[in-house]
Amino acid sequence: MEKQFYSYMQKTEHLKEAAGLMAWDLRTYAPKKGAAGRGEAVGTLSEMIFERETSEEMRSFLNELPGRTDNKVTEASLRECRRTFDKLTNVPQEEYKAFVVLTTQSEKAWEEAKETGDFQTFAPYLKDIVDFQRRYAEWKGYEGEKYNALLDDFEPGLTTEKIDDVFAKLKQELVPLVEQISTKKNPPADLFSGMQEQDQAAFSQKILEAMHYDFDAGRLDKTVHPFAIGLNSGDVRVTTKYDENDFRTAVFGTIHEGGHALYEQNIGADLYGTLLSGGASMGIHESQSLFWENFVGRHYAFWKSYYPLLQDAHEPLKNVPLDSFYPAVNQAGPSLIRIEADELTYCLHIILRYELEKALIRGELEVDDLPEAWADKMEELLGIRPENDSEGVLQDVHWPAGMFGYFPSYAFGYIYAAQLKEAMLQDLPEFNELLEEGNLTPVKEWLTENVHRHGRLMDPEELLKSASGWEMTPEPLIRYLTDKYTALYNLKESEEVDK
Amino acid sequence: MEKQFYSYMQKTEHLKEAAGLMAWDLRTYAPKKGAAGRGEAVGTLSEMIFERETSEEMRSFLNELPGRTDNKVTEASLRECRRTFDKLTNVPQEEYKAFVVLTTQSEKAWEEAKETGDFQTFAPYLKDIVDFQRRYAEWKGYEGEKYNALLDDFEPGLTTEKIDDVFAKLKQELVPLVEQISTKKNPPADLFSGMQEQDQAAFSQKILEAMHYDFDAGRLDKTVHPFAIGLNSGDVRVTTKYDENDFRTAVFGTIHEGGHALYEQNIGADLYGTLLSGGASMGIHESQSLFWENFVGRHYAFWKSYYPLLQDAHEPLKNVPLDSFYPAVNQAGPSLIRIEADELTYCLHIILRYELEKALIRGELEVDDLPEAWADKMEELLGIRPENDSEGVLQDVHWPAGMFGYFPSYAFGYIYAAQLKEAMLQDLPEFNELLEEGNLTPVKEWLTENVHRHGRLMDPEELLKSASGWEMTPEPLIRYLTDKYTALYNLKESEEVDK
Repeated sequence: MEKQFYSYMQKTEHLKEAAGLMAWDLRTYAPKKGAAGRGEAVGTLSEMIFERETSEEMRSFLNELPGRTDNKVTEASLRECRRTFDKLTNVPQEEYKAFVVLTTQSEKAWEEAKETGDFQTFAPYLKDIVDFQRRYAEWKGYEGEKYNALLDDFEPGLTTEKIDDVFAKLKQELVPLVEQISTKKNPPADLFSGMQEQDQAAFSQKILEAMHYDFDAGRLDKTVHPFAIGLNSGDVRVTTKYDENDFRTAVFGTIHEGGHALYEQNIGADLYGTLLSGGASMGIHESQSLFWENFVGRHYAFWKSYYPLLQDAHEPLKNVPLDSFYPAVNQAGPSLIRIEADELTYCLHIILRYELEKALIRGELEVDDLPEAWADKMEELLGIRPENDSEGVLQDVHWPAGMFGYFPSYAFGYIYAAQLKEAMLQDLPEFNELLEEGNLTPVKEWLTENVHRHGRLMDPEELLKSASGWEMTPEPLIRYLTDKYTALYNLKESEEVDK
Repeated sequence: MEKQFYSYMQKTEHLKEAAGLMAWDLRTYAPKKGAAGRGEAVGTLSEMIFERETSEEMRSFLNELPGRTDNKVTEASLRECRRTFDKLTNVPQEEYKAFVVLTTQSEKAWEEAKETGDFQTFAPYLKDIVDFQRRYAEWKGYEGEKYNALLDDFEPGLTTEKIDDVFAKLKQELVPLVEQISTKKNPPADLFSGMQEQDQAAFSQKILEAMHYDFDAGRLDKTVHPFAIGLNSGDVRVTTKYDENDFRTAVFGTIHEGGHALYEQNIGADLYGTLLSGGASMGIHESQSLFWENFVGRHYAFWKSYYPLLQDAHEPLKNVPLDSFYPAVNQAGPSLIRIEADELTYCLHIILRYELEKALIRGELEVDDLPEAWADKMEELLGIRPENDSEGVLQDVHWPAGMFGYFPSYAFGYIYAAQLKEAMLQDLPEFNELLEEGNLTPVKEWLTENVHRHGRLMDPEELLKSASGWEMTPEPLIRYLTDKYTALYNLKESEEVDK
């Protein structure tokens, strides 16, 4: 029966591979007139996947197999299949269908509302979505906070209680730091425009190669909203966006997606064809992309070796010394839009959303009061207020898409990444020197050994503990940001930590 | 129940769309390390399609629906579903599985045998395949010749009796014509090399645009073995190959695949999501690609308008007058390899294969005697003998892949195309003038009106009769080839038909 279970999982994975390729194609090469038909076909495949994940056959695997195996891959696969099965079957089928329809309508209403800045036209949909989330939490069940049920879908094991503790520490340290920095003048940042698309593409390719992204098991393509996607163990693709007005979009975007892709390319062969052949969680996945984007890609030592390559690809930079370039790509300060935020302020954008979500689910905040609450929180955390809802409460797709409990994963991705970085330094004390030499091999190998190869075998916190040696804590991130930005903005006589 | 039938068909079409995209991707952009996993995933989807095509649900549609509808799309869809159902269920399941394994092994053995030229290592597999084909014909059932059962899978309604009659006429006219031409000296053909890949790509794009291929509902990509593929009604893709040593590969290959793609792009909207949304048969599909490749693309008048465009794309051609270029792209004469054959000799290559297949299925020829029989036929039809089996009996993938009864479709594609051309001339007597002006719109519209839009609504011969006004006959093809090549090779005082 164990053999049948593997064969059953593999077929589901094959359907996911097909749906994944269709999604990749839609966002890269598909002609526009095929999009509507393609959407329907993806819908059919999603339905088939749903049916397999919730079938009677799956139920019998889940009932019969546990306890009858000592294979840890089987055990962990059963755990993941059970999680999916419960998640999908806890919701009454009629409610689930209605929710799918609701989110489709809601996303449409949101797009229009974002265009016009009119929150009130979107509010009725959001009310229904929040209402569904509250009921969903009840169907699913939870311990402690109701919101924990939602968190668990994205970051298994994470709770409101843990988040409150971690976010309190972050706020305490970061809010005053951002406040101090916002009084400082940023270095000039007009050096990012004018790099030709093909030069950005060539440089992106070189950076991915330096990261040991395997081009025989992947590709780099152009898209509008960049993503990485693992189709099978030998096919993990990166997409990026080329903005001739700002090459940072491509450079840091490619490194970020490359971090996701490296994870998927290096999952252990023993996990192929099982539900464990993906990343451990949203947060752990994000830790990999952020590790490369920030802890490598925004590091002074990294640019010491790779800046000449960038200068070769874009002549005007030959007049810009590294010591001007480095602070320019590490500018920080309060801003309104999350996806444009810098690494220092990013977590504060997440904390804002988390506190509002929690209050909505608790019933302590009503949807109608959300725009005001958003602006107030923004002021409290970042010292600025949005002028309209488009650059405030309407900016993200997550709520219209019905994703509550997702945002904290982003912040925990940072926290995990910083913790992994400190752990890595114990094994690779020569980290800075390696980057200066442009040798990223040991960095990639450490991540593969400690994170990538395990796929979804462990829950996120268990994996983090196994990789770093200690429990999850925000201290490494606080240390990293405090030290780096204190030095960058000369907030005191500093040891120039990052240089 | 009719509604459920449509919904059922549509879901199967969605799975085919997914499998089609995976196949396209494998042959264009997929990284090599993903190929093995992708192959398995395609296998899973094929299995799921097979299950749907032969399911109990399908059986009940086929039992309940006929006679209960007067919708001709439903009726024709039921006819096609029945054809597939019978084809797949007539074979005992164990035999079918064994055959799939056999063809996989056989293709592998064939690849090696082709490499070394050693037919004997491949012969045992081919014996088993021929044996299966004979049994398959019995399971399926047939009237008259056993071989008719095989033909029906590719060209419904075509029979050995009809082919024998048609091929006898072709042989009678073409064998002496080829013999005459083979004594003539061909014009120099060293003008096809040196055109850069990007120039070939740009020219290919322009020709597709001139043919009214819709780039908003398709794409042109590069591949090794060119093909066109319809994924859904708004997504029909063309692939081509760029050979810098010979631009004819790309130019005529693109026009050929463009002909297939135009067909799929212009199937009536009422057929979307049904089994009728493809071409009527292999032969009718081939008639569309050959119409464009030969009756348009090798026509003097076509080059009168498009040759300057090609000369702009490839400077050296500016020294080659049209009156030298035209005969150079219409060279004919005996050759050993089917896929490199010209339009005059092509049918003789098919007749050779047909006669051998028929004899094998009848039991009048044994596999061991095949190489000798091949060489003898080659000499009889084309006056030349292969020096080894690689350029003889081992050249095609069809037999190793288990496709018997397929080859005649190619010749009938020519026959249909020539017949459509004569019918078109009745409606568009100004055909030559249109081509000279570079105006391909009326040609494309005629084909859409009379062929494309009907999809698989009619059987091939019915469609041909409806489009051309008369029964299938090889006379138009014989007239076309005789007139054109008599003039081109000055075989007698001619009227220069094609010019």
